[in-house]
Amino acid sequence: MPKLWNETIDAHRREVRDAILDATAALAFEQGLRGVTMSQVAERAGIGRATLYKYFSDVETILRTWHARRIDAHLGELVRARDGEGSPGRRLDAVLTAYAHIAQQTGGHDRELVTFLHPDEHIVNAQNQLRALIRDLIEEGAAAGELRADVPPQELAAYCLHALSAASESTSEAAVDRLIALTASALRA
Amino acid sequence: MPKLWNETIDAHRREVRDAILDATAALAFEQGLRGVTMSQVAERAGIGRATLYKYFSDVETILRTWHARRIDAHLGELVRARDGEGSPGRRLDAVLTAYAHIAQQTGGHDRELVTFLHPDEHIVNAQNQLRALIRDLIEEGAAAGELRADVPPQELAAYCLHALSAASESTSEAAVDRLIALTASALRA
Repeated sequence: MPKLWNETIDAHRREVRDAILDATAALAFEQGLRGVTMSQVAERAGIGRATLYKYFSDVETILRTWHARRIDAHLGELVRARDGEGSPGRRLDAVLTAYAHIAQQTGGHDRELVTFLHPDEHIVNAQNQLRALIRDLIEEGAAAGELRADVPPQELAAYCLHALSAASESTSEAAVDRLIALTASALRA
Repeated sequence: MPKLWNETIDAHRREVRDAILDATAALAFEQGLRGVTMSQVAERAGIGRATLYKYFSDVETILRTWHARRIDAHLGELVRARDGEGSPGRRLDAVLTAYAHIAQQTGGHDRELVTFLHPDEHIVNAQNQLRALIRDLIEEGAAAGELRADVPPQELAAYCLHALSAASESTSEAAVDRLIALTASALRA
């Protein structure tokens, strides 16, 4: 088969796969995680049940894959913030800002989803990468004299992630901004 | 019946009830929340199954009651910290310290338990009381010029509770102390 044909098939498979992931996530948010059936997913994605089963064997696997895709997107966003311009302290602020907005958007749902799915390797791995990313930036910032050096960077990273998870309760963008400034101020005290 | 007799019965009932709660909590921590059966609870508490069913109809109700009892104990501890000596800022520090230690001891298990039980009125009510207690102290402290007044007390209270939940990951008392000092420093920036 010519290469072009293979690429067309691959693109089609990715599209179907994404449609399945999006349909399942939409159903889960509408009616709760436990109630979604494979038949509903097929209908919402606009494909037959037989086709759906060629891609995924059950709803939990779809949700797990959807969650992994979203985690990767978020990690990518945080890595870009880390690799931006400026001193370690400035780049840390950019990472914390991005993280707070992710926490605001995903907070409540995400906790429910993670509990439902139980921690898998992908989630744990992503959490560890996130932790390491923030810890390393804090370490750099402390070495540069921008951030406090009297608390281990690992503990400061845990503090940041927990404090910013309060963004899931924030009712306005201004409140999220205040939370970020508040959290970051302790790193410089 | 003479009053003394009634009191003896009441005391006995409370003792059996407490034994059931403690046995169930111990089993849940040993083997996970989902696996505990009424037969195991009866055996561990040293009572018959028929007696157990006179007190509770199922394991979830026992866990809910156990959790409510513990929440009340923790709230009592925080209220005592609030009602101690000193300025609002000092008393806030005492409350935050008590809360961080509770979070350190109960953190991981508690999240699992609360998710398993689903939020009930008692839990939501206790969380609201805790939130209000901290918010009011912060408001007092801000009025006294001890704490920052540029962020709404409600938001500062949410920040404190989230930041201190990082204590569930702390591996030493010294780390918990650093977390408390870190969190509190942002309230005075």
